[in-house]
Amino acid sequence: MKINSKNFRTIWPHSTGKYVEIIDQTLLPHRLEVKRINSLKAMVAAIKTMQVRGAPLIGAAAAYGMALATLEDAGDESLTKATADLLASRPTAVNLRWAIERMLVHLQPFTVSARVAAAWAEAAAICDEDVVINKAIGEHGLKLIQDVVAQKNRPLNILTHCNAGWLATVDWGTALAPVYAAHDAGLAVHVWVDETRPRNQGASLTAWELGQYGVPHTVVTDNAGGHLMQHGKVDLVIMGADRVTSTGDVCNKIGSYLKALAAFDNKVPCYVAVPSPTIDWTITNGLREIPIEERSADEVAFITGRLPDGKLATVNILPQGSAVANPAFDVTPARLVTGIITERGVCASRQLGVLFPEKTGGKR
Amino acid sequence: MKINSKNFRTIWPHSTGKYVEIIDQTLLPHRLEVKRINSLKAMVAAIKTMQVRGAPLIGAAAAYGMALATLEDAGDESLTKATADLLASRPTAVNLRWAIERMLVHLQPFTVSARVAAAWAEAAAICDEDVVINKAIGEHGLKLIQDVVAQKNRPLNILTHCNAGWLATVDWGTALAPVYAAHDAGLAVHVWVDETRPRNQGASLTAWELGQYGVPHTVVTDNAGGHLMQHGKVDLVIMGADRVTSTGDVCNKIGSYLKALAAFDNKVPCYVAVPSPTIDWTITNGLREIPIEERSADEVAFITGRLPDGKLATVNILPQGSAVANPAFDVTPARLVTGIITERGVCASRQLGVLFPEKTGGKR
Repeated sequence: MKINSKNFRTIWPHSTGKYVEIIDQTLLPHRLEVKRINSLKAMVAAIKTMQVRGAPLIGAAAAYGMALATLEDAGDESLTKATADLLASRPTAVNLRWAIERMLVHLQPFTVSARVAAAWAEAAAICDEDVVINKAIGEHGLKLIQDVVAQKNRPLNILTHCNAGWLATVDWGTALAPVYAAHDAGLAVHVWVDETRPRNQGASLTAWELGQYGVPHTVVTDNAGGHLMQHGKVDLVIMGADRVTSTGDVCNKIGSYLKALAAFDNKVPCYVAVPSPTIDWTITNGLREIPIEERSADEVAFITGRLPDGKLATVNILPQGSAVANPAFDVTPARLVTGIITERGVCASRQLGVLFPEKTGGKR
Repeated sequence: MKINSKNFRTIWPHSTGKYVEIIDQTLLPHRLEVKRINSLKAMVAAIKTMQVRGAPLIGAAAAYGMALATLEDAGDESLTKATADLLASRPTAVNLRWAIERMLVHLQPFTVSARVAAAWAEAAAICDEDVVINKAIGEHGLKLIQDVVAQKNRPLNILTHCNAGWLATVDWGTALAPVYAAHDAGLAVHVWVDETRPRNQGASLTAWELGQYGVPHTVVTDNAGGHLMQHGKVDLVIMGADRVTSTGDVCNKIGSYLKALAAFDNKVPCYVAVPSPTIDWTITNGLREIPIEERSADEVAFITGRLPDGKLATVNILPQGSAVANPAFDVTPARLVTGIITERGVCASRQLGVLFPEKTGGKR
């Protein structure tokens, strides 16, 4: 994607092969800063503090975390420790585990001395594949949008929650890939951007990246979506996911369930766009089986923004002494999800086996 | 209610009969400041800027606005102008119109010179009646809570949205009146407080007043309630309302509809607590007939809080150039509301006629 007409990915290796660079997403939309990540420890910290976030990008970051670990020590013990450190950084996104396991399987056959080059090549491959996957998600989603546009014969209003744009992936995004594809195809699309408290990834990341790409959009509070749907102002909901069960339950940013309920109540189609590494084929009950990360109370209490002079400041919005709970994700049951958009095409939420028969032994 | 053990209402006349005092709610929870309102114009501004807010309190404030208008000129023309100015200040709350009409009907028979004293007395009566009404809502709601406690045999978790506490009324509150009654009765209650973006009346007002009263509570983002309900962590939802139709449709702070959907989906009882002046007997379809106030984009873009040194600062959280929409209310259809708590008792949402037969000609 482009920022001020310059091409960017969210993560890339430096040509020396000694470190990785990322866009520090905690400073957006106020500052664009590229940050150097030169160790496993630094990558774990970047994932924990959400300088990189979004399920696919966390996977890519974890892969480079393994690559950075090989620079320090490429032996089995070191890789086992790196695995543990990375897995502990964010418990909900399945891409993290997927990327680490892929790196381990890939590196195992190599001699320790050959692992450094192999690790950096494999991390790069994971990133390149993510881009290809997301382009495909965009093309499949574009067809969906074209179908709805044909019915409506007017500009299309798409609501999205959190950020599942190019900032959540290596490039293009998942939920926003169809939006960018539609915009590039000359279709008139407008995006309702959920603010997405507590970390405001919608207001700060989705709004910013749509703005950079020139896609018309309007920020709303997380409370507003139901009202917009009641009044026919939303044609389509497209969200990303941090984990999807084999049965189509969708774990995504806290509040996604509420939007899916409202979409269902108002007969607005609700789609979830995911690359296949986000599908966890080992589980069937999202509500019972997916651990929900409880994050710091500070994320709710403190908000960062620009002062009138352009400087950044962080303010506390809560009364002293009030307790806070901060569950970071919720699970939307498959019954509320119209369909899932993957790199292989679009299917009904409970029919992932149709697109991925090799994962389900042909069962649907 | 008490602040630091001192009794307070949210609005009261000064003993001179020359002005009214209010708690400036835009500064809470950071500062407690009492503000003098000495003219109709100042009262209109206080309502518009939400220094006073909450449907019942807006009614009381409008009544005192009329009283202040009589100090300037108690003639018919002046009162007609005052009516227009006050009605334009907030379009959604029906209590505003109710209080103004009551003042007009009351003042009409008096000579112009007698209207000043009559107006101040009637405004005081409206305030006193609000307190009595809310105490009654508290007692009826208490019975409801006792019933649920008896089933659960453990501390009760109540979720509320926005602020329908004593700060939204003259005293005691509507949705929180049962909570205070339960707390006073020695029942163990814990309140999940929805932050309530964009103005954060939950995080700033509800959390603050519950804290002052010593009621255990936890602030959550507006996104979290559905997840809490899915996991059995909410026993009861109690919200206030800005307007209720004769058919039980509920207009309340934006996002209430999403919580009602989640409560319905998880079989959590969802109650709305209102004084009868909040019921609009003239309308039957909330979605079609209630005008929804669209407020300033600045409410979404700018957030005020405390800096580390305790000073207040206002920060802009949005990217430059992103559009904002800010609908302030939504409508929850009666089918999603378990019951309505009024000063006359509790009824099913579609059965208001049972409690108020004189308003419906005996029809239910």
